[in-house]
Amino acid sequence: MTNFGKRPNLPEGIPSDQQRIAVEEWFVKLRDLLCSEMELLEEKQNSSNRLPGRFEKKPWNRLGGGGGVMSIMKGKVFEKVGVNVSTVYGDLSSEFAAKLPGTSKNTTFWASGISLVAHPYSPLVPAVHMNTRHIVTGANWFGGGADLTPTISNNADTALFHGALKEACDCHSSEYYERYKAWCDEYFFLPHRDEPRGVGGIFFDYVNTGDWKEDFMFVQDVGRAFLEVYPEIVKHHMEKSWSRQEREQQLIKRGRYVEFNLLHDRGTQFGLQTGGNIEAILMSMPPSAKWQ
Amino acid sequence: MTNFGKRPNLPEGIPSDQQRIAVEEWFVKLRDLLCSEMELLEEKQNSSNRLPGRFEKKPWNRLGGGGGVMSIMKGKVFEKVGVNVSTVYGDLSSEFAAKLPGTSKNTTFWASGISLVAHPYSPLVPAVHMNTRHIVTGANWFGGGADLTPTISNNADTALFHGALKEACDCHSSEYYERYKAWCDEYFFLPHRDEPRGVGGIFFDYVNTGDWKEDFMFVQDVGRAFLEVYPEIVKHHMEKSWSRQEREQQLIKRGRYVEFNLLHDRGTQFGLQTGGNIEAILMSMPPSAKWQ
Repeated sequence: MTNFGKRPNLPEGIPSDQQRIAVEEWFVKLRDLLCSEMELLEEKQNSSNRLPGRFEKKPWNRLGGGGGVMSIMKGKVFEKVGVNVSTVYGDLSSEFAAKLPGTSKNTTFWASGISLVAHPYSPLVPAVHMNTRHIVTGANWFGGGADLTPTISNNADTALFHGALKEACDCHSSEYYERYKAWCDEYFFLPHRDEPRGVGGIFFDYVNTGDWKEDFMFVQDVGRAFLEVYPEIVKHHMEKSWSRQEREQQLIKRGRYVEFNLLHDRGTQFGLQTGGNIEAILMSMPPSAKWQ
Repeated sequence: MTNFGKRPNLPEGIPSDQQRIAVEEWFVKLRDLLCSEMELLEEKQNSSNRLPGRFEKKPWNRLGGGGGVMSIMKGKVFEKVGVNVSTVYGDLSSEFAAKLPGTSKNTTFWASGISLVAHPYSPLVPAVHMNTRHIVTGANWFGGGADLTPTISNNADTALFHGALKEACDCHSSEYYERYKAWCDEYFFLPHRDEPRGVGGIFFDYVNTGDWKEDFMFVQDVGRAFLEVYPEIVKHHMEKSWSRQEREQQLIKRGRYVEFNLLHDRGTQFGLQTGGNIEAILMSMPPSAKWQ
């Protein structure tokens, strides 16, 4: 067991209003780019007769401060894909504040982020999760990551996905990829099943190098790498036919996904603890799942 | 918020070997009776062409001490029903021990119980949960309960179910039913959804009146009441046809069931904390579920 999850000591200091606006604007822009790419995949796919899906937007407000916009698409490539952008702020419960850096003087917080979870119809197209966020208490930091959850994994997809994230990491520090890959493997693990959730990716938190601009660039590069690589992986498999048995395997795998999200996921816990929008928090749930 | 969940002070004192054996034997006997009743319902049901289900038994051992037997049936009335009897013992983690009575001198425990979760095929037949248990640390107590989770609730079923449990309670104390009904309503509630899991029943814990025999009789009466009333409710609905829309509603309701079990259920937590058999702990998961 590493110290990955431990609350670090971060320097006090918060970003300016302009900086926060720039972060928010980036997350919204990335959302638009991602939604366009995924709608394009719906248009391009030929092997299904159904109509291509379109994202529907649903704004929501948070009691206590802030809100966000959920974009949900139920299509033919993507049985369900949700992209949520949100900026929330207010007061943390003292119990929860104690777990975060920068909360010794007061318990106010501001958090902006984007998260995406895609559950494709085809068991041959991997499910995926991506999230980046900026959190401000008395300190401030970036967090996020991306990880791939195939039903039937194959080395080519895994290499492509990891390669893209490594490239994004390497532009910023030669240490990032190894560290954040290891953290991802540790984090996306179901101890009660003694099995990983998927084939990993990267996971990072408490990123504050002292150079805010640089850290923000890193987070943007992770978003851009994801925007490139995931659609590419989808294209490789989206026209293939699959068997009923492969579909069953996918539904069981999705059950594991549910277990992870409800038993272990910190994003889910953060959302529930800060009274976020329940639909947005549980947007990551698969459209259907099975247990044996 | 009441004090229902609070750790009470219970008198020190543990039951004899004979007493423990009597408890274990009752749970096994109740298991056999329940399984027979449910197999009988499978035989009796006429409106489906499929073959009637039969329970399959699967023994398991617990690393650290004890084990149990899972009985699972996948039939035509019951899409999935699991009955688990177990007797486990050993050492509690100090963190978990701190939450239980009777652990100030040492952290050994012994626990025996039966739990049943039924997920019927038909959205018109309510899902149900029943559990009774005896736990021994330096102190000892009984716990358990039964609650009904219909997709489409109706007053007749609710009244029948509550009536049977009230009768069992009333034989032992005029206070039990109201208290344990309220505890059930409090416990089987999804705060993040602001909705109850089902239509309730009874939930009790830390039962130790000082008269062990009487407490054990109470737990037996709860089991017997359940054995009578649930099959009766199933019979009222099991031949009716249902619509696709009602089935969809059921799958969404099952999603809520999953959320409760993984986010809130103490039995699940106890199992995961004490390293129980993962298949047995998650036996309560529905065979299939959906999220919108």
